[in-house]
Amino acid sequence: MIDKTHLHQVYLNGKLLPRDQAMISVFDSAVMLGDTVTESTRTFNGVPFKLDAHIDRLYKSLKITRINPGMTAAEMKALTLQVLASNAHLLAEGEDCWIVHNISRGQSVAGADPTVQRSPATVIIFTSPMILTDWAGFYTEGCHAVTPPSRAMPSQALDARIKNRSRMAYTLAEIEVKLVDPKAQGILLDMNGNIAENKGGNFFVVENGVLKTPLTSNALAGISRATILELAQTLHIPLRECDLQPYDVYTADEAFFTSTPYCIMPATRFNGLPVGDGMVGPITRRLLAAWGALVGVDIVVQAQKQLLPD
Amino acid sequence: MIDKTHLHQVYLNGKLLPRDQAMISVFDSAVMLGDTVTESTRTFNGVPFKLDAHIDRLYKSLKITRINPGMTAAEMKALTLQVLASNAHLLAEGEDCWIVHNISRGQSVAGADPTVQRSPATVIIFTSPMILTDWAGFYTEGCHAVTPPSRAMPSQALDARIKNRSRMAYTLAEIEVKLVDPKAQGILLDMNGNIAENKGGNFFVVENGVLKTPLTSNALAGISRATILELAQTLHIPLRECDLQPYDVYTADEAFFTSTPYCIMPATRFNGLPVGDGMVGPITRRLLAAWGALVGVDIVVQAQKQLLPD
Amino acid sequence: MIDKTHLHQVYLNGKLLPRDQAMISVFDSAVMLGDTVTESTRTFNGVPFKLDAHIDRLYKSLKITRINPGMTAAEMKALTLQVLASNAHLLAEGEDCWIVHNISRGQSVAGADPTVQRSPATVIIFTSPMILTDWAGFYTEGCHAVTPPSRAMPSQALDARIKNRSRMAYTLAEIEVKLVDPKAQGILLDMNGNIAENKGGNFFVVENGVLKTPLTSNALAGISRATILELAQTLHIPLRECDLQPYDVYTADEAFFTSTPYCIMPATRFNGLPVGDGMVGPITRRLLAAWGALVGVDIVVQAQKQLLPD
Amino acid sequence: MIDKTHLHQVYLNGKLLPRDQAMISVFDSAVMLGDTVTESTRTFNGVPFKLDAHIDRLYKSLKITRINPGMTAAEMKALTLQVLASNAHLLAEGEDCWIVHNISRGQSVAGADPTVQRSPATVIIFTSPMILTDWAGFYTEGCHAVTPPSRAMPSQALDARIKNRSRMAYTLAEIEVKLVDPKAQGILLDMNGNIAENKGGNFFVVENGVLKTPLTSNALAGISRATILELAQTLHIPLRECDLQPYDVYTADEAFFTSTPYCIMPATRFNGLPVGDGMVGPITRRLLAAWGALVGVDIVVQAQKQLLPD
Amino acid sequence: MIDKTHLHQVYLNGKLLPRDQAMISVFDSAVMLGDTVTESTRTFNGVPFKLDAHIDRLYKSLKITRINPGMTAAEMKALTLQVLASNAHLLAEGEDCWIVHNISRGQSVAGADPTVQRSPATVIIFTSPMILTDWAGFYTEGCHAVTPPSRAMPSQALDARIKNRSRMAYTLAEIEVKLVDPKAQGILLDMNGNIAENKGGNFFVVENGVLKTPLTSNALAGISRATILELAQTLHIPLRECDLQPYDVYTADEAFFTSTPYCIMPATRFNGLPVGDGMVGPITRRLLAAWGALVGVDIVVQAQKQLLPD
Amino acid sequence: MIDKTHLHQVYLNGKLLPRDQAMISVFDSAVMLGDTVTESTRTFNGVPFKLDAHIDRLYKSLKITRINPGMTAAEMKALTLQVLASNAHLLAEGEDCWIVHNISRGQSVAGADPTVQRSPATVIIFTSPMILTDWAGFYTEGCHAVTPPSRAMPSQALDARIKNRSRMAYTLAEIEVKLVDPKAQGILLDMNGNIAENKGGNFFVVENGVLKTPLTSNALAGISRATILELAQTLHIPLRECDLQPYDVYTADEAFFTSTPYCIMPATRFNGLPVGDGMVGPITRRLLAAWGALVGVDIVVQAQKQLLPD
Repeated sequence: MIDKTHLHQVYLNGKLLPRDQAMISVFDSAVMLGDTVTESTRTFNGVPFKLDAHIDRLYKSLKITRINPGMTAAEMKALTLQVLASNAHLLAEGEDCWIVHNISRGQSVAGADPTVQRSPATVIIFTSPMILTDWAGFYTEGCHAVTPPSRAMPSQALDARIKNRSRMAYTLAEIEVKLVDPKAQGILLDMNGNIAENKGGNFFVVENGVLKTPLTSNALAGISRATILELAQTLHIPLRECDLQPYDVYTADEAFFTSTPYCIMPATRFNGLPVGDGMVGPITRRLLAAWGALVGVDIVVQAQKQLLPD
Repeated sequence: MIDKTHLHQVYLNGKLLPRDQAMISVFDSAVMLGDTVTESTRTFNGVPFKLDAHIDRLYKSLKITRINPGMTAAEMKALTLQVLASNAHLLAEGEDCWIVHNISRGQSVAGADPTVQRSPATVIIFTSPMILTDWAGFYTEGCHAVTPPSRAMPSQALDARIKNRSRMAYTLAEIEVKLVDPKAQGILLDMNGNIAENKGGNFFVVENGVLKTPLTSNALAGISRATILELAQTLHIPLRECDLQPYDVYTADEAFFTSTPYCIMPATRFNGLPVGDGMVGPITRRLLAAWGALVGVDIVVQAQKQLLPD
Repeated sequence: MIDKTHLHQVYLNGKLLPRDQAMISVFDSAVMLGDTVTESTRTFNGVPFKLDAHIDRLYKSLKITRINPGMTAAEMKALTLQVLASNAHLLAEGEDCWIVHNISRGQSVAGADPTVQRSPATVIIFTSPMILTDWAGFYTEGCHAVTPPSRAMPSQALDARIKNRSRMAYTLAEIEVKLVDPKAQGILLDMNGNIAENKGGNFFVVENGVLKTPLTSNALAGISRATILELAQTLHIPLRECDLQPYDVYTADEAFFTSTPYCIMPATRFNGLPVGDGMVGPITRRLLAAWGALVGVDIVVQAQKQLLPD
Repeated sequence: MIDKTHLHQVYLNGKLLPRDQAMISVFDSAVMLGDTVTESTRTFNGVPFKLDAHIDRLYKSLKITRINPGMTAAEMKALTLQVLASNAHLLAEGEDCWIVHNISRGQSVAGADPTVQRSPATVIIFTSPMILTDWAGFYTEGCHAVTPPSRAMPSQALDARIKNRSRMAYTLAEIEVKLVDPKAQGILLDMNGNIAENKGGNFFVVENGVLKTPLTSNALAGISRATILELAQTLHIPLRECDLQPYDVYTADEAFFTSTPYCIMPATRFNGLPVGDGMVGPITRRLLAAWGALVGVDIVVQAQKQLLPD
Repeated sequence: MIDKTHLHQVYLNGKLLPRDQAMISVFDSAVMLGDTVTESTRTFNGVPFKLDAHIDRLYKSLKITRINPGMTAAEMKALTLQVLASNAHLLAEGEDCWIVHNISRGQSVAGADPTVQRSPATVIIFTSPMILTDWAGFYTEGCHAVTPPSRAMPSQALDARIKNRSRMAYTLAEIEVKLVDPKAQGILLDMNGNIAENKGGNFFVVENGVLKTPLTSNALAGISRATILELAQTLHIPLRECDLQPYDVYTADEAFFTSTPYCIMPATRFNGLPVGDGMVGPITRRLLAAWGALVGVDIVVQAQKQLLPD
Repeated sequence: MIDKTHLHQVYLNGKLLPRDQAMISVFDSAVMLGDTVTESTRTFNGVPFKLDAHIDRLYKSLKITRINPGMTAAEMKALTLQVLASNAHLLAEGEDCWIVHNISRGQSVAGADPTVQRSPATVIIFTSPMILTDWAGFYTEGCHAVTPPSRAMPSQALDARIKNRSRMAYTLAEIEVKLVDPKAQGILLDMNGNIAENKGGNFFVVENGVLKTPLTSNALAGISRATILELAQTLHIPLRECDLQPYDVYTADEAFFTSTPYCIMPATRFNGLPVGDGMVGPITRRLLAAWGALVGVDIVVQAQKQLLPD
């Protein structure tokens, strides 16, 4: 795969710009306060997956944070499709891309009330080739899931469902996770020791044929998560949203993460022990296949192609 | 006062730039992840106040976040003084300025491990005229302190002492505060209902001649806070670091915030009720005077001058 | 409406008394200790709504508090109906009333064991015209729901399901709510930041056609709440009892409170933002209509009539 | 002792009334909402002990609850002394009495905003002979302290320092305590398992000569408690305010409660085990003696006289 | 019944030994660290009940604790049946027995890393006559359930589902329970005041015909508990797994414990008050009968026979 | 060093036995319930260090657990010295040993009330050569301190000050620690994210010349910890007992563990980062030297001698 990332143009406040010209002021509230809401969508066969759901969630985040993006959800959607169209020619046959929205409150003034929006919002929309090389091996081998000592932010401090770019807590927890294994993927626990979420995804276990995942009280209401709930219904896999503890992962038959880029990432080890028999399990594989069928892409094959030498 | 903010040059990754050219990539981890540690120092009579302490705390934040700034603390200090020197001529007689450090992990790659630093850190140092117009009236009138329903982030999610730019939680809490009074200043409570901190400062009460402030378990270890502890010792004002609850504020004789720009901001109302007799109290005034004496600036006069018509 | 409240006779310890003669000793445990359990029932077309359920819950509260009311539940019910009958002539056509039970442990002795019942219980039963003028406007406009910083009492301190008259915590929280908006209605959060209850009612949201309400772990097991659960089943509105956070209200399509006097009170704003499109929603209106049909009263019309000039 | 309680006149809203005529409306917010703040003072040799401190704390409670008592603290004090003077002749030589203040928000209206004060406050001041028969034996034998399973109300629900008459939670916890031993005295734990307070008093332990008591974060800031702190300083007994757990009581050398009526009540058993050697300890006895000296009354003798046959 | 307990041979590390020769070193990690996982199975008509489920749970505990038992689950099962067969002749007609597994990490070395297994595990399997004399009376009278002040261990300290022999916390809580009533059976609450579990069993209530029991987040995932879930389904008794508080027990119609030895133990009192009408309820009796039918043993008759004189 | 461990005789219930004959029944409550309290003392120059303090703490543990050891504290001490004397000849010049007490409630009966002591307690006292090879290198290199995701048991579940042998939770947390580094030493956090304790020791940091250690609310009240408090006073090192969080360790100048066998174990890394300059610090070294002076043993030399080839 030839990396054309640098050729993708970036939408920034009304203009499409070459990637290296997409710059914002160091005084933007994005930089000064992490005051940015965000979405990450991906395409399958070049078509954005559940774009409406992503735009809808983006506008929920904008509402709660009181950031006025300066356009309606419909306009945002149309604009998003334009940005995608502008870069579509850069994707080779069978390649897909991310579409990322970052919207900040705009100009920040040192010492002034941070809740006031002083300028039009900073609206950034960009596409990126879907580079999955870090994850592609996990589809067949599974990854190592690890719980860090730090805890997920409680909703009464900051609700994880407001998808935002103030991610310091997640990054520090992930640093703790990497102490155990540099390739490990983190599972944050909440203040009560229940499983919350990954820094960018949700988590599921399979136990005795039942799919289980935490509620979204302390986790992002992931669109990939919602896709699994739909697929499970279609496939008649019983599903339960409930509190889970590490015990449930240690004793699960299967486990996996979900997130926009990789869809499903099997976890075959947990805190140093195998999950189930240590192999990617049949329900995980059925869900991966069903997702692929839904979008017309063999998700695993597409990702693993990236591991091949050009 | 003629606002010369726009004339201050900004240090960015090795260069001094005009303010409107100080731009960073929208792919910087500052923007993508709020992955920035920070300090805000101010000058008195043009001399940075406790610069060593600020640099020291900055390097603590860098250490814990594993951001390599590419220079030693001594080099950072020298550089800071250079930036200040470059802009010093813009300050009129009797004017002071902020010095702000923002240091991010540098380049971010979508979907890649966020804990890895892939490029030199992004190092931003800028000065700004010390505009205190929003606060200047509070030195004599006192402000209205208000507790929002959201809670301060617990240290097991993200320790407030790591001074950083992932501030979404603080901004949302401040929005709640402004629902009560658009000029109110927030006091965040921790998960147990104890007083934690303001979005950018610490909080003190005076009760029966004793100065009390929360421990730094759930609050920034403020350098202004430390200055108050020193001044209290000098002035023989008894001091106690302990858990405080709203009851302590409702029944206090005096209360104030501390932060780098305003040093001390008296609070004369709390959740709609007067603090003490509703006037700025004598111990608060003694502390303000002592601080002024320490730095050779009449803090109140300097700030209130900004309220005058030019 | 001519206010005849003062003409309603009050049952007190075996006697029906004019309202201004219904007095109890300042040494009663109701006054000395807030040691009173209570129920509030209302009539529709003069008939008490779910009186058995109210009496049943009253006897649960009496049991746990170990207050002996001196009569069986059946006797209490018969007595209640007598009190209602005595005052029924005071209600104009189409008017309804409250029926309130307050039962305290009786005589209190300073310094003596408060758990011992030293005298017959103090039994108070009174009716009051159903004055809804504070709420009547909300049926069509919706109210403003606000979360205070104080938290609902946890069940391990005092279970909210024991309906009682030790209401100081609720009153103080409501004072905080009124700081935001003097007409706002409070939504208390529990210790974990989940939505608990209003000072006198329960809370529901509608999201994507699904009705959601908190469990009763930290909230009164409201009889109005139970009525909504029944109506939802009848109307085939899917319902989910689960933890809810402020995010769920910010992003809901509709929201409402339930309580005995007003049955359903739509909330169209939450912490300063509109709920849904800021209008009373269709599911809320269907539920109001269904409730009205159940009891043969147009609840909205009856209440709004009180807003008209006589 | 001849009980003359019934002869003490009661101040109620401007009048001195015979005890059995001191009645309030069942619609008073004291009855309807437990919306009453309170103080209990006692006399020594007929002189109220620390009356200023009690009045001061009463006005703190009034302030936070936003109840307007209709008079200044000085007027309240003068009035209190008048009430006491009116009843002073009823006290035999060497007898003392309580002075209790109960102040409610006044008239309550069903369904109306409980935070609005609609009438003058209901002001009740009464005296009562200091009947200590339930406690008198404990001065020499010590009592049995027991922890109930229910927890003290956390300050973020209702701060225990607001001395009020919404006491249902305390009464229910005391019922649990009496299951272990009908004469046991309760020690409430807070939400973290730390010792909070007794339903009407504070708690101390002595360990290796050091007096220890919890902070007032989750406990009444008792005036008796403050008296112990002063006496300890006078007697050079080292003192520490800190979190205490049941372990500290099990392993203490001595333990005691403090409260207005009994001043100090030794606890010689805790959850069924002896405290120290199971006898009232020397530091407890020194404190009792010092308190007696301070007020010119042999506290133990005075109380135990009540146990004698007339 | 003639007690033949002493005749039962004990399996210990490869040998069947007379009971009084079944000894382990005082340096075994079972003694030094309570480092033992365990199962307790019982027979009905001499056949182990759900032995596979017990062995499966044992291997889950072994996995999480990283104890290598030195044999597969299948081998463990075969061995268990051998031990049972060896002692089967000691059971009289109609008598049943326990089968207990205790497996420790083996040899412990003072001061050395306790996580390393230095020797083969210590494997103990023993049978014991099913002596139910302490419980037999409860089948018809019901027991007294009591909540202690100590709390159940939270899963983030030690997950209750890892069935183990570090039981000090349970024993201390049970001591507190016995202060109320020497025959009381404890119900531990979790950190939030929800009902968790008994020291060796789970807890159920029946309310309005619905069977309710806590989730296993803070409780053993009991095999008897699972049996009730199955029986409830068979008998069409609606069932709900949810948080329960003491209020739910006070107001329940019926309540019972479940555990391996007694299967179902009705609770007819709770903290001094009757549960329902204070008698063993109809759903409890149906479940007991159904369980008996499932295993071909009249559970109540078998147990109560032990109360008869020989 | 020639390991003579196997030659040390063990006291067990009245007899001194060869080590391999020191066996207890698998039905002892030590095995069945981890129902054992314990102490570990060490000698310096053959003299037990603070034996009185250890015996005193042992009797506190016995009291709370209601285990009757069958002898007084004085008898226990005399017996301990006898056991030591019996094995003293096995220690070479300059060698020291542990003295361990393990006392269980004795015989356990399956299914019977675990709170009843049915037999004399099982009393085990043994000595062991002080093998420090695992730790000796840390005196000069420092160890790696790591926080596991599991949390320390809260005192309301089981107070850490009751030194006992139900250690499963500590062992599982230590397993998590070893995932990061097989030689790491764990620092357990409490439920609020504060530093609690090591599985067998306490923890200190040095910051700006001040020694800080957590209170004993969630940690063993270590006798080594107390020794540090005494030494700090002697050496005029300022000391503060307060809540500490991981931030305090990351930013400390020095850090160390304390425990009976090694006295002081410097920690020079914390979660992968150096503590201070990554070297054993001067205050740590002063304390080690002072401790050595106190007991007349060069603690470091004695331990490191064990690392030499014989």
